[in-house]
Amino acid sequence: MRLMRLGAVGAERPVVLIDETHYVDVSDVVADYDADFFARGVEVLAPVVDERVASGRVRELAGERVGAPIARPHQILCIGLNYSDHAAETGQEVPAEPILFTKSPNTMIGPDDDVRIPRGSTKTDWEVELGVVVGRRTSYLDSVDEARDAIAGFVLVNDVSERAFQLERSGQWSKGKSAETFNPAGPWLVTPDEIDDVLALDMWLDVNGQRRQTGSTATMIFDPYVIVHHLSQFMVLEPGDLINTGTPPGVGMGLDPQVWLQPGDVMQLGIEGLGTQRQRVLAPR
Amino acid sequence: MRLMRLGAVGAERPVVLIDETHYVDVSDVVADYDADFFARGVEVLAPVVDERVASGRVRELAGERVGAPIARPHQILCIGLNYSDHAAETGQEVPAEPILFTKSPNTMIGPDDDVRIPRGSTKTDWEVELGVVVGRRTSYLDSVDEARDAIAGFVLVNDVSERAFQLERSGQWSKGKSAETFNPAGPWLVTPDEIDDVLALDMWLDVNGQRRQTGSTATMIFDPYVIVHHLSQFMVLEPGDLINTGTPPGVGMGLDPQVWLQPGDVMQLGIEGLGTQRQRVLAPR
Repeated sequence: MRLMRLGAVGAERPVVLIDETHYVDVSDVVADYDADFFARGVEVLAPVVDERVASGRVRELAGERVGAPIARPHQILCIGLNYSDHAAETGQEVPAEPILFTKSPNTMIGPDDDVRIPRGSTKTDWEVELGVVVGRRTSYLDSVDEARDAIAGFVLVNDVSERAFQLERSGQWSKGKSAETFNPAGPWLVTPDEIDDVLALDMWLDVNGQRRQTGSTATMIFDPYVIVHHLSQFMVLEPGDLINTGTPPGVGMGLDPQVWLQPGDVMQLGIEGLGTQRQRVLAPR
Repeated sequence: MRLMRLGAVGAERPVVLIDETHYVDVSDVVADYDADFFARGVEVLAPVVDERVASGRVRELAGERVGAPIARPHQILCIGLNYSDHAAETGQEVPAEPILFTKSPNTMIGPDDDVRIPRGSTKTDWEVELGVVVGRRTSYLDSVDEARDAIAGFVLVNDVSERAFQLERSGQWSKGKSAETFNPAGPWLVTPDEIDDVLALDMWLDVNGQRRQTGSTATMIFDPYVIVHHLSQFMVLEPGDLINTGTPPGVGMGLDPQVWLQPGDVMQLGIEGLGTQRQRVLAPR
């Protein structure tokens, strides 16, 4: 199943995509794609969607704004340096275990919403990433294999980052990850059953039409199951939590000379099976 | 005003303390002390409390469980190494600007609830802290002075920490700060007008009756107003967000030899004007 949220900011309706151009509205059945929904399980939607498709209650995507496919999560967790070739481009060693940092939940926006450069920024950068959405309350998983049942789905994310704030402002990374608009997500959440192999997905990101990132989830150091198992040893994951699992090579920081986002730039990105995003870059407010 | 939440876990009622042993229930007026409430402003309660005190609608505190005085926040932000003498005891330099790290919001518990040592822990530690509760949506404050209007109140916090997870597990600190039960808060939130000088509050923490931390907010490196102003440059603070502002000397990591929490230990802590806490320490589940 592919879940989307359509409508104005703060008033998005949950829908289910049934092909590239049509959807079923489920906003009368489900309040939102939030913690309560994921705790009940995505599968509650299946009979509703089947019945509505059969009875022709199908609508056409018609240019309406696309929101992030999940409500604001309890937490956004991020894994750093999780592609061996990206670690190399930033001059850092491959980590011995997943590096955790966090992002303020209110950074989440729709896939095509504008990204705003923060005040005082000199080094705003892009990061195409595979996002993992947690499906249930998850703590102390006994095995990596158990993590499969804890994942509700996957989502395309741009983990926008301010490198000076992240690396030159007293240590911890969160300061460079949490500016408003810094987490475009979507267009849809896809459930694991619709992805053949989550570890063989092509991913890419363009800035102003120029290809900057080219990668594949095949080069991840820690896969989504290892990450969810690992994090569950340190904290309780809640249904609807979002985990950004790291970025492949080609970020602005890794280029020579380095390249940073400027007002007027356009980012376009995608992951195979997870759709595409397009963001204009705005000047600081 | 002093705000408390009374009742079973997940079913706390918002009340206002009127003296050391009596309160006014406001749960029919305010759903919870959450983002919506803080956005409206704590002062909406004043006429309600005045009227109920005048008409004798006052109850006695009678051993009911005390919850954290605020609902689960959008984010828990923490400032590291913010007391010059604590920085010294951990062997680290005084930071040039506030060090930000984060804690999962679902770590928050009541002031006297049990703290559980996480599985695999060898170095669970204590930290008495002044917590700051954000009063309104706050972004890009122009001056430190403006931060005064952005603070709803202050709260006593125990920023429980697992030092091996924090410092020996691939870099960022959040991994050692986010285990369940790791953020006892309360017993009450006190509004700024009831604190003479937030930068002159004695603070202390005992383990099994032995004094371990003795300090004062007077030795903070960055005061609450500097912190709120600083953070507002990097992210949007939401009403009800909690900021733990750092701990004075005497944590277990700083002792020689180092001391870590064990099952059966009892922590007691307090800050002048903010009340006291008492937690039993439980073995991993």
